[in-house]
Amino acid sequence: MIEKTLGSFELIATDGAARRGRLTLAHGTVETPAFMPVGTVATVKGLTPADLRDVRAEIILSNTYHLWLRPGRATIVGAGGLHRFMAWDRPILTDSGGFQVFSLESRRKLDDDGVTFRSHIDGSEHRFTPENVVAFQEDLGVDVAMALDVCVKLPAERDELEAAVRRTTSWAERSASAWRRGATLLFGIMQGGLDEELRSRSAAALVALDLPGYAIGGLSVGESRDEMIRFARFAAALLPQERPRYLMGVGTIRDVIATIDSGIDMFDCVYPTRCGRTGRAITRDGEFNMMNARFVDDFGPLDPTCSCAVCETFSRAYLAHLFRSGEMLGPRLLSQHNLARLISIVEEARAAIEQKTWETFRDGLLIRT
Amino acid sequence: MIEKTLGSFELIATDGAARRGRLTLAHGTVETPAFMPVGTVATVKGLTPADLRDVRAEIILSNTYHLWLRPGRATIVGAGGLHRFMAWDRPILTDSGGFQVFSLESRRKLDDDGVTFRSHIDGSEHRFTPENVVAFQEDLGVDVAMALDVCVKLPAERDELEAAVRRTTSWAERSASAWRRGATLLFGIMQGGLDEELRSRSAAALVALDLPGYAIGGLSVGESRDEMIRFARFAAALLPQERPRYLMGVGTIRDVIATIDSGIDMFDCVYPTRCGRTGRAITRDGEFNMMNARFVDDFGPLDPTCSCAVCETFSRAYLAHLFRSGEMLGPRLLSQHNLARLISIVEEARAAIEQKTWETFRDGLLIRT
Repeated sequence: MIEKTLGSFELIATDGAARRGRLTLAHGTVETPAFMPVGTVATVKGLTPADLRDVRAEIILSNTYHLWLRPGRATIVGAGGLHRFMAWDRPILTDSGGFQVFSLESRRKLDDDGVTFRSHIDGSEHRFTPENVVAFQEDLGVDVAMALDVCVKLPAERDELEAAVRRTTSWAERSASAWRRGATLLFGIMQGGLDEELRSRSAAALVALDLPGYAIGGLSVGESRDEMIRFARFAAALLPQERPRYLMGVGTIRDVIATIDSGIDMFDCVYPTRCGRTGRAITRDGEFNMMNARFVDDFGPLDPTCSCAVCETFSRAYLAHLFRSGEMLGPRLLSQHNLARLISIVEEARAAIEQKTWETFRDGLLIRT
Repeated sequence: MIEKTLGSFELIATDGAARRGRLTLAHGTVETPAFMPVGTVATVKGLTPADLRDVRAEIILSNTYHLWLRPGRATIVGAGGLHRFMAWDRPILTDSGGFQVFSLESRRKLDDDGVTFRSHIDGSEHRFTPENVVAFQEDLGVDVAMALDVCVKLPAERDELEAAVRRTTSWAERSASAWRRGATLLFGIMQGGLDEELRSRSAAALVALDLPGYAIGGLSVGESRDEMIRFARFAAALLPQERPRYLMGVGTIRDVIATIDSGIDMFDCVYPTRCGRTGRAITRDGEFNMMNARFVDDFGPLDPTCSCAVCETFSRAYLAHLFRSGEMLGPRLLSQHNLARLISIVEEARAAIEQKTWETFRDGLLIRT
C-alpha cells in the first residue's frame, strides 16, 4: 500500500477558537484560513489562472459531478491532469459530486452501494460509488479529493438525516479503503443536519478513519443563518485540532468571519463570483448593486480599502457603465474584485490571529458589513 | 486660432503600393499598417486595457453614437476624458456616428444641416451636426476624430450616392471649420459607393481641406468582396501620399492583406472580437469553429504560429470545452487571441514592406487563409 501524506497540516497560531494554519499539498502551500474560488467546470467563471494568481488565490475548487459529465475523464487525463488542462499550477480541491447529485432530486436513485443519476446536460445515465469517485479524482491528479457523501436539504426529518449519516459514514470508510494516490489527500464530509447527536455520530466515525482533513457538509442548505453559525461551531468542536476543517458552501464576509471564529480553516462558495456576474459588489463596508444610480458619476474606486487590480484601475462610474450597457467586462471585473476582497479579508484574519487581535478584527468587520 | 498638428504622419518605407508608416498622436505612436480593435461603448468586449497592451494594440476605436447615448458626455468629461474613463492610455480614434446613425434607417431624419435620430436604447431624440460631433469628440479628448458623414448601404441608386457625397463634402468642410483642439486630429471620410466619378469628386473635395488623415467609408456595406478590394484600391490612389489612409470596417486577414497591397494604412473591424464571442478562431491557416468535434481532444495550441498569451497557455481542447460548456472565459480568450492574430499579421506586414518582401509575404498569406 502506498503511504498517504497525513499530517501535512501545521497549526501556526490560535486566538480563542480561531486558527491560523498551513496546509502543504502536492502543488503548493495553502495558508489558512483560506477561501477557495469555485471553478465548477475547470474555470472560475470569466477569470484566467493569471487573474486568480493576481487575487492571491492559493487553492481553487472544482466539481467531480460537472467534470465527469463534461469534458469527462479521458479528456482531462489526456491533457495530463486537471492542472494542465486548465493551466492552473497551484492546488485544486474537487468536491465529490454528492452535493450536486442530491440536488438533482427526481433525476437520481440512491442505494447503499452508490447513486445512479441522469445528466442535466443530455439525460444520459451515470453511476457514482465511493470507489469510482475517489478513483476519478485521483485520475484528475487533484491535491484534495472529497469522499462521496449524502447531502440532505434542510429542513429534513430525522429519519432522512440518520440514513444520510449512515450512508455517508459507510461511504467514507469505503473511500478511505479505495484511496491509493499519495499526492491526493482524501477529506471526509460530516453530515447530520441540525441534529447534535447525528453530527456527533458522523464526526466520531470520520475521525476514527484518521483522514488528512474533514469537511462540514449539510450546512448552508436551507437553514437560517443563526443555525448555520451555531452548527458550524458545534461541528468544528467535534473535529481534531491537528487536521484542517473545511466548511462547505460558505462565502459572505460575515459568514466567513463568524465561522473562522469557531475554528474553521477552509471555505468555498460561488457567492463572490455569482455576485460579480449579477452586478453585486462585495466591499469592506457592505454589499451594493452596481445598477444603483449613485454610481453613474462616482469616479472613486469600487472599494477604497481594496488594493486589487480592478480597484486600482477602474472607477465605480466605469463599472456602472459596463453593467448598464450589458458589457461582459463588467461581470469579469466584478468577479475578480469580489474574489480579491474575500481573499484579502481571510489574509487579514490570518494576521489578526497571529497577532492575537482576532476579536477586535472580527467585531470591527461584523459591525461594518 | 489654435495650430493643428498636421504632418504627423511619416512614411518610412514602401514596396509597390504597400506603405509602412508611423502616425504620431497625442497619446503615443501608431506604427502602420495598423489594426484598431473596436471598443464600441468604451470597452473592447471582454478585454481590459492590460489585455489590449498584451496583444500589442497601439490604438483602439470607439463610437461617438454609442458614447453620446451612454454614458454620455458629462460622465466621460467628469472622469477626465475617455482615456481616463476606460483606463486606456494609448491613442483612441472615435468614429463620427455617421455609420451608426444611418444604420438606424426608420429612426432617423436627414437634412442638409445634420441628422435627427432616436436612441436604440430608450427612443429619446437626438441631433448630430458636423459641428456638435467634432465638439463631442474633442470633449472626449480622443487622438483622432472623424468628420460626420452620410454612409449609404449598397447597392444604392446614383442619386442617393451623389446626395451622400454632396452632404458628406459640405459636412467635412463644416467639421474642418469647427475643429479647435490641436491634440485631436480630424480625419475626413470619403463616400461615393461603387462609382468612380463620385469617389473622385469626394476625394478631391476632402483633399482640398488638407486634413491630417483620410478615411475610405461606404465600403464593406453590402458589395461583393471583389468590389470592395477594387474600390479600396481606386479610392486609396485618390489620396495624398503624405497622409494616413484608413479603410473603415475591414478586418479579416485576407481583406487586410489585400488592401494593404493598395496602400491602406489603418483598419478597424468588430470581426475578430465578434468571431471570438461566437467561437470562430482566426489563425494563420484559416478560420475554424471551436465547436468542431475534432478539437475536443486536441491538446495543441489554437494557432501553432501564434505567440499570444492564450496560445501559450491553453489548448484547443480546453477552449473547445469552454465553448461547449457556455463558459464566458471562452469568448474572452478567443477574442484576445483573434486580436493578437490580426495585430501580429499587420506587424509582419510592416516588416515585409520594410524588407521589400511584401509580395512574397502577401501571396504566402493569401494562399493559406
